[in-house]
Amino acid sequence: MPELRKDPIIGRWVIISTERGKRPDQFNGKQEEGVSEETCPFCEGSESQTPPEISAIRPGNAAPNAPGWEVRVVPSISPFLRIEGELDRRGKGLYDLMNGVGAHEIIIETNQHIANMADLSDEQISKVLKCYAGRIADLEKDKRFKYVLVFKNYGKRAGGGSLRHSRSQLIATPVNPKRVKEELSGSRQYFDYHERCVFCDLIRQEIEQKERLILDLDGFIAISPFAARFPFEIWILPKKHCADYTCQDSESIKYLGKVMKIVLSKLKKGLNDPSYNYVIHTAPFRRQKAGYWKTIEQDYHWHIEIIPRLTRVAGFEWGTGFYICPLPPEDAASFLRGVEV
Amino acid sequence: MPELRKDPIIGRWVIISTERGKRPDQFNGKQEEGVSEETCPFCEGSESQTPPEISAIRPGNAAPNAPGWEVRVVPSISPFLRIEGELDRRGKGLYDLMNGVGAHEIIIETNQHIANMADLSDEQISKVLKCYAGRIADLEKDKRFKYVLVFKNYGKRAGGGSLRHSRSQLIATPVNPKRVKEELSGSRQYFDYHERCVFCDLIRQEIEQKERLILDLDGFIAISPFAARFPFEIWILPKKHCADYTCQDSESIKYLGKVMKIVLSKLKKGLNDPSYNYVIHTAPFRRQKAGYWKTIEQDYHWHIEIIPRLTRVAGFEWGTGFYICPLPPEDAASFLRGVEV
Repeated sequence: MPELRKDPIIGRWVIISTERGKRPDQFNGKQEEGVSEETCPFCEGSESQTPPEISAIRPGNAAPNAPGWEVRVVPSISPFLRIEGELDRRGKGLYDLMNGVGAHEIIIETNQHIANMADLSDEQISKVLKCYAGRIADLEKDKRFKYVLVFKNYGKRAGGGSLRHSRSQLIATPVNPKRVKEELSGSRQYFDYHERCVFCDLIRQEIEQKERLILDLDGFIAISPFAARFPFEIWILPKKHCADYTCQDSESIKYLGKVMKIVLSKLKKGLNDPSYNYVIHTAPFRRQKAGYWKTIEQDYHWHIEIIPRLTRVAGFEWGTGFYICPLPPEDAASFLRGVEV
Repeated sequence: MPELRKDPIIGRWVIISTERGKRPDQFNGKQEEGVSEETCPFCEGSESQTPPEISAIRPGNAAPNAPGWEVRVVPSISPFLRIEGELDRRGKGLYDLMNGVGAHEIIIETNQHIANMADLSDEQISKVLKCYAGRIADLEKDKRFKYVLVFKNYGKRAGGGSLRHSRSQLIATPVNPKRVKEELSGSRQYFDYHERCVFCDLIRQEIEQKERLILDLDGFIAISPFAARFPFEIWILPKKHCADYTCQDSESIKYLGKVMKIVLSKLKKGLNDPSYNYVIHTAPFRRQKAGYWKTIEQDYHWHIEIIPRLTRVAGFEWGTGFYICPLPPEDAASFLRGVEV
């Protein structure tokens, strides 16, 4: 059983995964991952090679686990967390831990063997984005979970492995990730003082100043943030205030698909198909309960963060949370504005 | 001039470096760093190839910037921060920034062309560790600085570049790194409740439980921490409570050199010479001032964190501060205990 363990000093939860784990002697300083391109379990017609599907978009009402789908969600075959069981929170001396209960799902974004989401159509990307919303809403019903992390690892440098079939992942967790808590508390502080959402203010300023703006289209902006940690770091934000990704209507999801397509295509064309990660930042579950969580609807603003993996992260970032970005975000934005797609 | 910029939501400071920066079109998704092993500017006899030295250990009182040294400190030729100038804190709409003022120094750990600190003698490592203390104490005199980050990037995966001469770096910054602030506030909270140092309690428990203990020698322990983020993550802690790295006496530094030598040799032998980073975590400057900083001496406990770079960090860690460790620290510690050096 994997475990969730809490750092006793700074309170960060970590998944200690055992199922997926290699033996200690299988870690090796010199090892490089090979490229294997055997039969792809994510292509149409190979449905039997994955665990039974959790959900799918099937226009013709075809039977599950058979061809005829457009987006398909399956459990991970090597999950970080296990879906069965109770949390069983407990202490061990000064340490806190609980069982590694959670969901880990793979969202297969196309039935074709296409590697990069940038090469899917706007419409197909919108279907994937809609599928995220459906899965988050469904997992919210499970009272053990506090958050669903939706993310993508594309390319080897981004931890995407060697199988070149476009997909994303989600993890439902019984704890709120540290960064999410920090964003919630930071945006609450800002609201307390200004009585305005910090993200709404940021969007207004970025549209006005233009220098970090990559795109302003159909209700969304894409910017390289003022305090970017990485070269070409990109945030996509809806102009309309909303804390929760799942609250979008189908028009908004349609437009978001278009915006994602343009941004990812600019990255692909401008930077020679780099590896990248993205993460959806949305409000946690169960926020109607007591305390400051009540104010999340007004304080917080969902968004997507994209990080191309172009530079190696050196040592002191890990140890300190203090980053060095070797390219001003203004230069990154200006470059990406100029890439025609 | 580089800038220090603050993320308006979570308050994290980032260095936006321009001097060192490449042009946007020089970032490339497919680019790999080559290995270049030309004449090494860090070897004895090549002193003229570095900027003039800031400090050095020279047993025979030889002249500066000439052979005859054991450890040598020089300014970085491509500094992240600039030593001259005032901070000039200012706002720009809702954003906060200041000039990228700070120091960036290279500590050359040996006059021989040896790549890994693990291959230096105990005594030589102790000299390096002593040199860190001297530099931190010296930089504390500069009222603009709040913290000195001492770190090492060894090997290409750790951001160590291609030049194989053992060295470490330090950055003196006018802001406290986020992670350090979190550790300070976490350890204060623990002290407030328990009236004991969380690190002292942790050391006691680790010595008792033994399962995560790698070494217990001469006043130091090396453990793989309970909530390790990375496989084979290692913390080295002094058993004697002390908040500040620079307060160690020469006996303690001598023993720390021995402990570092053993731990780094175990990593090298057991894991096939992996890339690694380490960071010294010590109390910030100017803690005698008002407020909770006064209690740092009792709350906080300096230590060293070592991270071998064996796995790729995937996407959602960046976006969320939530880590998955694929190897239980108990297994890592047991493996490293068994590596004979």
